[in-house]
Order: sequence, then structure tokens, then C-alpha cells
Amino acid sequence: MRRILIINPITSKEFDNMTKEYLEKIKDPCTQIECVSIKKGPASIETFYDEAFAQPEILKVADRYKDKCDAIVVDCFADPGLYAIRELVDIPVIGPAEASMVVATMLGHKFAVISTMRNSGPWTELQAMAYGLSNRMAAAIGIDIPVLELSKDPKKTAGYIVKAAKEIIQHKGAEVIILGCTGMVSVAEMVKQELDVPLIEPLATSLKVAEMMIDLKLRHSKLGLYMAPEKGKIVGY
Amino acid sequence: MRRILIINPITSKEFDNMTKEYLEKIKDPCTQIECVSIKKGPASIETFYDEAFAQPEILKVADRYKDKCDAIVVDCFADPGLYAIRELVDIPVIGPAEASMVVATMLGHKFAVISTMRNSGPWTELQAMAYGLSNRMAAAIGIDIPVLELSKDPKKTAGYIVKAAKEIIQHKGAEVIILGCTGMVSVAEMVKQELDVPLIEPLATSLKVAEMMIDLKLRHSKLGLYMAPEKGKIVGY
Amino acid sequence: MRRILIINPITSKEFDNMTKEYLEKIKDPCTQIECVSIKKGPASIETFYDEAFAQPEILKVADRYKDKCDAIVVDCFADPGLYAIRELVDIPVIGPAEASMVVATMLGHKFAVISTMRNSGPWTELQAMAYGLSNRMAAAIGIDIPVLELSKDPKKTAGYIVKAAKEIIQHKGAEVIILGCTGMVSVAEMVKQELDVPLIEPLATSLKVAEMMIDLKLRHSKLGLYMAPEKGKIVGY
Amino acid sequence: MRRILIINPITSKEFDNMTKEYLEKIKDPCTQIECVSIKKGPASIETFYDEAFAQPEILKVADRYKDKCDAIVVDCFADPGLYAIRELVDIPVIGPAEASMVVATMLGHKFAVISTMRNSGPWTELQAMAYGLSNRMAAAIGIDIPVLELSKDPKKTAGYIVKAAKEIIQHKGAEVIILGCTGMVSVAEMVKQELDVPLIEPLATSLKVAEMMIDLKLRHSKLGLYMAPEKGKIVGY
Amino acid sequence: MRRILIINPITSKEFDNMTKEYLEKIKDPCTQIECVSIKKGPASIETFYDEAFAQPEILKVADRYKDKCDAIVVDCFADPGLYAIRELVDIPVIGPAEASMVVATMLGHKFAVISTMRNSGPWTELQAMAYGLSNRMAAAIGIDIPVLELSKDPKKTAGYIVKAAKEIIQHKGAEVIILGCTGMVSVAEMVKQELDVPLIEPLATSLKVAEMMIDLKLRHSKLGLYMAPEKGKIVGY
Amino acid sequence: MRRILIINPITSKEFDNMTKEYLEKIKDPCTQIECVSIKKGPASIETFYDEAFAQPEILKVADRYKDKCDAIVVDCFADPGLYAIRELVDIPVIGPAEASMVVATMLGHKFAVISTMRNSGPWTELQAMAYGLSNRMAAAIGIDIPVLELSKDPKKTAGYIVKAAKEIIQHKGAEVIILGCTGMVSVAEMVKQELDVPLIEPLATSLKVAEMMIDLKLRHSKLGLYMAPEKGKIVGY
Repeated sequence: MRRILIINPITSKEFDNMTKEYLEKIKDPCTQIECVSIKKGPASIETFYDEAFAQPEILKVADRYKDKCDAIVVDCFADPGLYAIRELVDIPVIGPAEASMVVATMLGHKFAVISTMRNSGPWTELQAMAYGLSNRMAAAIGIDIPVLELSKDPKKTAGYIVKAAKEIIQHKGAEVIILGCTGMVSVAEMVKQELDVPLIEPLATSLKVAEMMIDLKLRHSKLGLYMAPEKGKIVGY
Repeated sequence: MRRILIINPITSKEFDNMTKEYLEKIKDPCTQIECVSIKKGPASIETFYDEAFAQPEILKVADRYKDKCDAIVVDCFADPGLYAIRELVDIPVIGPAEASMVVATMLGHKFAVISTMRNSGPWTELQAMAYGLSNRMAAAIGIDIPVLELSKDPKKTAGYIVKAAKEIIQHKGAEVIILGCTGMVSVAEMVKQELDVPLIEPLATSLKVAEMMIDLKLRHSKLGLYMAPEKGKIVGY
Repeated sequence: MRRILIINPITSKEFDNMTKEYLEKIKDPCTQIECVSIKKGPASIETFYDEAFAQPEILKVADRYKDKCDAIVVDCFADPGLYAIRELVDIPVIGPAEASMVVATMLGHKFAVISTMRNSGPWTELQAMAYGLSNRMAAAIGIDIPVLELSKDPKKTAGYIVKAAKEIIQHKGAEVIILGCTGMVSVAEMVKQELDVPLIEPLATSLKVAEMMIDLKLRHSKLGLYMAPEKGKIVGY
Repeated sequence: MRRILIINPITSKEFDNMTKEYLEKIKDPCTQIECVSIKKGPASIETFYDEAFAQPEILKVADRYKDKCDAIVVDCFADPGLYAIRELVDIPVIGPAEASMVVATMLGHKFAVISTMRNSGPWTELQAMAYGLSNRMAAAIGIDIPVLELSKDPKKTAGYIVKAAKEIIQHKGAEVIILGCTGMVSVAEMVKQELDVPLIEPLATSLKVAEMMIDLKLRHSKLGLYMAPEKGKIVGY
Repeated sequence: MRRILIINPITSKEFDNMTKEYLEKIKDPCTQIECVSIKKGPASIETFYDEAFAQPEILKVADRYKDKCDAIVVDCFADPGLYAIRELVDIPVIGPAEASMVVATMLGHKFAVISTMRNSGPWTELQAMAYGLSNRMAAAIGIDIPVLELSKDPKKTAGYIVKAAKEIIQHKGAEVIILGCTGMVSVAEMVKQELDVPLIEPLATSLKVAEMMIDLKLRHSKLGLYMAPEKGKIVGY
Repeated sequence: MRRILIINPITSKEFDNMTKEYLEKIKDPCTQIECVSIKKGPASIETFYDEAFAQPEILKVADRYKDKCDAIVVDCFADPGLYAIRELVDIPVIGPAEASMVVATMLGHKFAVISTMRNSGPWTELQAMAYGLSNRMAAAIGIDIPVLELSKDPKKTAGYIVKAAKEIIQHKGAEVIILGCTGMVSVAEMVKQELDVPLIEPLATSLKVAEMMIDLKLRHSKLGLYMAPEKGKIVGY
């Protein structure tokens, strides 16, 4: 039995039920999932500022659960705290952006990411640069709907995403579309119906990548980028 | 129940039993695997020449089985025929080199590939360039043992690989090691024991990536690089 | 006297006379050319699938003629079998895509490739990545005319190419245009008249690069990527 | 009069006096500097984990002082919180790694970074990738001395750095050396004496870049990557 | 007191007063500037040809003044003679294109350069490639106004620049605009008023970078790319 | 009959006869070559400073001969004035570094350049960056023999080159060696005998590329990077 911890790195309850229900349908029968939200931090992650305030709590959750699970998924496309958790624990830690992008590279020549606010375009470009995948990304754009409003009018949200996707497929050569926010789960199915290319929903993808890592008994290297931290050095948390 | 076809793209019987047995242990209980070798073609794939003579048969096997399986794995690190099979079928097709490299990027900053003959070094560099992953690869080298001799003296083979890996970890900053030949299955465990960094065995990894793709209902884009071929255009095969 | 073998890697007779006549006018007086088509394989190469079925016969032709010629040109922009032939023979082997792209880099800052079907755009991008020339390519697109229809209505074909070229010159900064199919020979002159930038016809370019390689007594390195194959390992061909 | 805030993003008092004294000598007479340490967080930043726990306090300090200064320098080569602070404030925010690397590119063909622990090598490579400067960096390595021990035996520290620098200059083509930790201020002069190439001390460089940004009245763009955060969204801090 | 030499590498008197007046307002009180034009050479630098005829005189001016100044700025966005002067002298030498681009990378994710004639677009792309900054540049274009006509109708010039800038910000993701000609000083203020993103005026930026280099006591490496020339080897100048 | 102008961009007579004799043997029977040295300028080109003083005379020679020849080769691996001549004339202009590098990419996976002084290593790296070929270059180094001493002790020179080449082939994966100075003509044959990989002599290669460009009737694009200069703008030359 695989045990996977989903860390929901926001304080808003917006997506709690949806996430759980959604993943229960997607997970392997031999996988147990636990979803934990943070108590302190941002209502949603849309800026580096938000991300900074989410990280300490993410790490505390990871520390608390690390012996009770076999892999961790951080439920946010910003991959907040991804490297820090990898340093802290000895099990696979999956970030939705990273997982989605690498899976996308196997499905077509170039992928595109469609996300929320305007700043998410360059932010995603920055992620692609850091992950070394810039030359496989056709474009990254936002549809100007904030995270917490994505589910308010799902039809509108889906419509915006589809329009943006078709534009990018037509003019930038995108062959695969990645939803650039794990809060887009609720509209993924609607979007999928309208597109002729593969659609990657990052949360489901992360869960499956986590299961795969567990099955392959793979762990992050501790001989280079990820070094085990000295927890005692932290004061006041 | 997932049905995965493993195409063994060589005429040698060298690895047949080993592959089957090995994958039976690794596959999910809900996965059925079928291993099919080609009847015409090379005894092993060590050159582009070998690869060229393997491809038509690989495609015929894929065509014959494509309605009886849910994903295909090509059991060779050269990823022979990868793009052509993707054009031909409507199910996920996984290549060990591509799958191993993308998985490796999630495990550490830079990966290295250790393969068979001297030419496999630049060949792997070429793959990394085509897959857009050059900047995540620390090095790619061969240990000068031909494919069909890898299992003759497993201890020697493992020893050469370990030596090469340690050298690359120490001097080139590799944090993850990929075995650059699916014929190295027999020594994977031995090598793993000796290394302080994650070791990726490409065949197991490909199988698990295939299961993941099936579960995520993902298929290759047919709107760009991969276009359905006209089979009627082929004469004499 | 230089002897150059042109391998026409398709079974269609569509271009046979045209190719021969065309090259006779372009070749140096001290060059003899021989054009050989394959007997088994695709009518035209428009997919990786087609390419796979062309390669064994290409290699057999190369093997049969390798002692009677001083260089080989593969007459197809997909550069089918390019690396495999280089492994097999000890004379220069020229691929139209590779030759055209490197020549183009000397003529202007960025080149663009205009080819046949939609998939040829990303395919050419893939070639540019593998050849290490992505940053010199402005764009690569198809005009949605299949190879075997290029010569049906030459005026229409030329018109489509000119329109696409002007668009790319204007909006993507292309300074040199490469015809992305050796079957475009028949319209090259018409296109050239309409453009203010250099036009590279890949077949003529390949022939001249082959002559140059012969004159410079240059051969492919056999100490790295290209390793001489063991022909005895191939069964059933 | 320019007012520059130096945020010392660690709770250790180790470097407080040194930093202040050092910068007083380097700053322009028309610059006032204020050094502020964080009260909660890591004693030193050597892992992403440490960085995560430093960021909320860094942002609070920046928020508290943002109307009383004209630019901010984050005194750590990890550039912790760099993008988040830029989102929060409307004045220039300088990170030592970024500032040092861009200045280095003007001084020679390739620079190298010499830092503290082994993990700092790949970490710096990651920074160079994200800053788009990988192709100007010859190498990045650690000397295996933790941040808080750098000043214990300055001679030893300087000796290790000089040895590493000479090695990299000789074998990797580095033409400029960057000290990869702002805690190396105490040994910068000693190291400089021993090297034939320019040495960049990142803290001084950051201060001067900050002065320059103020004088040029330049601010970070708020129309793309850096979007003003909604502070009200943060709970519990 | 810092002494900075501004070399105006053109024979036209067009910008002489403007440059001097402009920089007097921008320079630090403790900086003295001297502006020297060349007597032989091009009226303006708009081609590599112009640049070639400017260089010998630039080098003579640099040689004549090198002991009387602490840094040199070449007042042209083509950075003419930049590397040659660095070889010749032992003080910092600043080129406006290089300085502007590196400063721009600290202000936003991608910058764009707006310059004079059509050829300045690819020329700037070439600079970005040589400086290793291609992946931080969104676009580079000319507005089709020659250098010597920029100041004739400043309103028109400013209008063209603003229009081009807005287009690039909107469609190419530019977050920072660089004026791609030091002759645009006269319209910089007008342009700045119209844009929501940072505007970099390269001449002012170069002066400030020069002051910074002096203050940091940094010099170009002489152990690699820049080697001291043998002046005696030059005949006839 | 093709007429090719060889511009020898140095004032030293060192290589005059050798160049002429050498090229007479290599040229096609239907090619006439004319070798012209410059009268003012450097004795040899080993720095950017030297190059700067060579360029005006190179351009004057090109201008004087441009109507009497069909292509121009600049006989120096620094490719001095390459882009400026291309602007000035309407015939192909070939630079030895550019021509050698592009030819090398067709012969093996990675090439290396072996040149004269230490600074030629990074200089060649800079060329490779500007030509967009960095990822095909394994290394570039100097052997610490000045240009004008290369022919003094040819055996020694050849020995140094061979030693460097073998080192780079063994340890950096070079598969093709380029002589990084056209003054190495005299030792090319000796070096070739000692190497198992292709050796590219840049002057012969440039001549043959020039012949090819003439035969293909190709010219440089004038719609982008290369713009026809206004000669009237130059004063005092």
C-alpha cells in the first residue's frame, strides 16, 4: 500500500473537498492519500510573496508526516518549497509544474502552459529555464482570472482557457497544453472536450508520478543540489 | 487491466527470458505484459545501422498488436522507431532513453548516462540535444563492453559501470546515474548497491511511465510532430 | 573525376528524370553523378514511419555502390539514414537538411525552412535541435501540399511558398529561405524570382557540398558518433 | 542622500559588525546604510530549507523599512526572497548572486563561483540557469567549509578559496572569480592578493549596484514577472 | 575624484553638446567627465562597415587618454572596439549595449531593444548571443529612422519608439525597454513618460556602470579573452 | 571561370608565397585566385586590437577588387571584417572560422579548435557563441606559439598541435579537429598524419566554400544583418 501526502499549501478551504474527491477517483486502488492544508500562510499562491509565506508551514507539514507517507505532492503549480522538502525528507517529492512539463515532453514537440494572472506567464518561463526545458515550451500565458475565482464561473474559466489554448496551438506551435494551476481541476474535463491536443492536468499527473516514483523505489539524490538541512539552526519557528 | 506491449527490437534471444521475468516482478498487479521480439533485424542495436534494420519490424509488430494493448514500450535505449510508432498508433509509446532522462531531471540537478561502446557517449548526447535536455546532462560515456557481452561476466560489467559512475559523480557533478542500455538489467542491482546516488534502470522506468500514461489517459499529440502515416504508400514490405 | 551517388529514397518515379536533369546542369564538369532509387519502401517520405521503411533499402544501395563512388547524397530533406550511411561507408555522406542549414548560417542572421505538410514544421525544428542550430532558425513551417502533389500545379506551389516566405521574412526576421523538400526543385526558380533574400535549394546545395568534401579529402570521424557496423549481425535482410 | 537597507537574512550575530564596518568603507559618502538582521529564521543559509525559513522575516523587514529607504540589498548569495521583495516594494532590490554574475560578465569571458558546502555548486548552477547566464559560467564549486566557520580560520578559508580558484582558472577557463558567499568578506582581501584575475566580492558589488540603480532612477518592472502582492491574503503571520 | 573618458566614436558634431550636457547632470559630483570625438571615421555608426572605420581612431583616443582617466565609456550602442580597448588599457571599459543589457536583466524577466534602422534588430540579436543573453531578450527591432535624423523631429522619433515598445510589451512579453542607440538621449524623457515599464537609456547607464567599476576597483581579466596587444606590430597608423 | 580574391589581412610577408602556392594546388582548375595583402595594419592578428587596425585596409582592398572577383576569402581565423565586407559587396565573403566550423559539424558530433596564444581559446568560444555553434564545440585552446613563429620550427609546432588534439579527443570528446589559424597551413599535413580524426585546414576549406557559393549563385542576405553602407559617411580614410 502506497501512502501519499498531498500538501495543500494555502489556507483557503476553497479546494479542499474538490481535491480529495478528485484524487480519490484517480489514485491507484493500492494508494492511500491524505490531504493536509496549511494553517498559516496565503489564501492562494499567486506571487512569490505568497509563496514565501507558504513555505515554512509546508515544511512543517512535511516534517510532521514524513515518516507516515511514501511520497509527497505539493498541490500548487508554483512548486512551492519543492527543493526544500526534498532536502528535508528521504522520500520522493513531486511538484506539479515540474511533473507536468516532463510528462508533456513525451507527448509532443512543444507544450504550452495556460495559467491564471498575467505574471504567471513569465513565472512559468522562469520555471522552464530553471528546469532546463525552455526549448520545449512554446508559450506560457495567464488568462487574467485569479486562483480563487477559477471555480466561480467554470464555464467562463473553461472558455478563456480553450480560447487561449487554441490561439497558442495555432500560432505558436503548441502540441500539448498544460493547465498551469492545480485549481483548474474543476474545469479540466470541460477544456479537454474542446481541444484536439493532449491536456495535462497537473494534480492528477503529480499523483501518478508520485506513485511511479514509489514503485521504482527512486529517491532524490542527496549528493548535490539537495543537502539535508540542520533543523536546529532555525530559530523562532 | 492495463495491457502493455514490450517490443524487444533485436533478433538475439539473449535477453528474452530475463526481460519477461524482470518486468513481471516490477509491473503493477493490474498490468499484463506481452514481450515480442522481432524476427528480422539486428542481433543487438549498437549503431544507427543496426537501428535502421530494426525499425520496419518494430513497426510491423506495433501495427499487429496495436489494438490489443494500451501502451507500447520499445525495449532499447536507442529509442528505435519511437516517433514512427507514435505516428502509427493511438496509444502511448515509451522510449527508455526519453523516459529515463525526464525522470532523472526530477531526482537531482544533473544526470549522467553510462552505456556500452564508445560511440554511445556522443549518441546519448545527440538524444539529449533532440529531447532538449542537454543542460541537465553532466556526461554520457561508454564502458567499452558490447551489448551481447554485458551479461557474460556480470561482476566485471557492474564493476566497470560503478567505476565510471563514481568518476562522473566526482568530477562532472552527476547526481543521478542512468544505465544507458536496457541490457544492463542483470547488473542493475549490483550497481545500485555501490552507489550513493539514485540509479535509474531504463526498462523498469519505461514500464512504469507506460502504466502512468495509461492511467492518465494521455496520448501523443497528432497535431504537430506526429502525423498518422499512409500505410498504403509503402511498397515491398 | 568525382563520382557522386544520389540515393533517391523513395519508390515513386515522380522525380527521377527531373532530379537527374537538374543535377546534370548543376554539377561540376569533372563530376559524374549516378541517381539510384530504392525498390522497396515509401512512395514519398512525409512521416517518420515512411522514413523507417526507406532506411534499409537506402543502406543496401549505399553498400552496393560504396566502392564505386566518392560521396553520397541522400535526396530527401528528412536526411533519412544519414548517420547510418556514415557509419557504413568511408566517404562523405551529405544530407540536404544539414547541408542547407549550415550553408544558410553563412548567408544571413536567421534562416527559415518552408516545407510540405504541417508536421514538417516541428520535424524541422527537431532537426535544428539535433544539429545544434536552433538559435539560427527563425521558423519552420509547412504549406500543406503533399510531396507528390508539389509538381502538379507548380504555380500554386510556388505561390504558397512565396506567401509563406514573405510572411516569415516580415514577421519572424528570416533573412534566408530554405526549401524544405528536395521535391521542390521544379519550383525553385519561380520562387527565387519573387524573393528579395537568398533561396537555398537543398538538392543542388547537397551536391555542391559533396563535391567540396571530396575536393577537401574530408571524411566523417569514426572515433565517436559514427562507429562502423557489424553487417553480420543483421538477420533476414 | 541615498538610503540603502541591508537585510541580513540570518539570526546569527556572526557577521553583524563586520558587515556594517565593511560597507561603511565602501559606500559612497552620500549613501546611508542601515543593516537589519532577522529575529526569526536560520542561523545561516546553506540549504533551500534555511532559505524558506528566512523569507517571511525578510519580507517583514522589507515591508517595515520600505518607505524609509531607496534600495534594498539582501545580504546572502542565495538571493533569498529576491523576487518576493521586488513584488512588495517600489524601489530597487539587489541580490548578491545576480549582481555579481552580471558584473562579472563585463570583466572576462567566463566567471566561476567559489562557495561554501558541496551543494552550493549545483545551487549556483541553478541560479545561473534561472538568470540565463549558464553559458558565461565556467564552474561553480564549494570548498566544504560551512558559512559559520568561514571566519574561524581566515587563513585556511582564504587558502582553500585560492586553491580552488587557481584550479578553475587553469582547467576550466575561468577569467573572473566570484566569492559565492557574502560571509567571505573577511577573507576577500587575502584572496585577492593571490589571484591574477579580478575577484568579485558580492556584498560590496551589491551595494554599488544598488547605488547605481538609485542614481539611474530605475525600478523593477511591475508588468510581468513581479506583481504587487495582496498582503491581506496572508493569515497567521 | 573619478575621471571618466567618453569616446564619441563618430566624426559628426551632431551629439557633442547634448552628450556633454546630459552627462554632466547625471554624473556623480565626484566624477569628472571628458568627451572626445574621433577626427577620422564615420559620421555615424549604423553598419559594421562604419564600425570598422571608427575603431582605429577609438583606439588611438583610448591610448592617448588612458593614463589620464579611470574608466572609459564608448558612446555607441554598437559597442565599437569594446574588446580591443579592454586589451589596450588597464582600466574598466564600458559598452552601452553590454551595460544596458546586464542592468536590464535585474529589472524584469525579459528586455527588448528598440533601435534605429532595420538591420539593428539582427545586429542586437547578435550582440545578445555573443554576450550570452539571448534567452533574456524578448525582441530587438529598428524604427527605420537613421541615427543622424533621430533628433530632427524628436516628437516623431519618440512616437515611433513608444509605438514599437508598446507592441513588444503587449505581444512579446518585454518587461524592460532599452533604447538601442545612444543618440536617443534627446527623446528618452519623452518616451519614459509614455511607458509603464522601466526604460534604460544606455549612455547614462554606461556612465554609472563605469563609476561603479571604478569604486569597486574592478578591472578586466587579462588572463583569457583580453590579451595586451603589441602596439609595435601595427604599421602605417 | 571563378575569380576568388584572398585578402591577407596582415602586413607581414611571412605567409605570402606559401599561401599562394598552397591554394594553387587546392583550387579548382576553373578558379583563378588573387592574393592581396594589406599595406597598413598589423604584422599578425592575435588580438582584437590587431584586428581593429586591419579592418579599414581589408575593406579598401575589398572595395577595390569587388568588381573583379566573384567571391572573397579573408585569410585569417579571426574572420576580421567579415560582416563589414558582406555589407559592402554583393558577392560571397567567406571567413575561415565560420566556414571551418560549419563544415566540421557535418563530420562528427563535436569539433575542437586548436589555435595559437592562450587568448585564442576564449576568442574562439566567443566566435562559436556568435555563430550559434557552442553546443557543437568540444573545446578551443591555444598552444602558446605566436602566429609569426608557427613556421619557424614546424616540427615543434606540429608536435604541440598533435599533443593538444589528442588530449582533447581523449578527454573532451572532440571528433574533428580544426586548425585555428590560417598560418598553420605549413604544418597541416604533418598534423594530419598523426591524427585518427578529420583535420580541417581553414584556408583550403574557405576557398572551397567560396567556390561552392559561386557555383550555387548564393549571396548574403541584404534584408537584415548586412545593410549596404554609405561610403560617403566615412571621413579621413
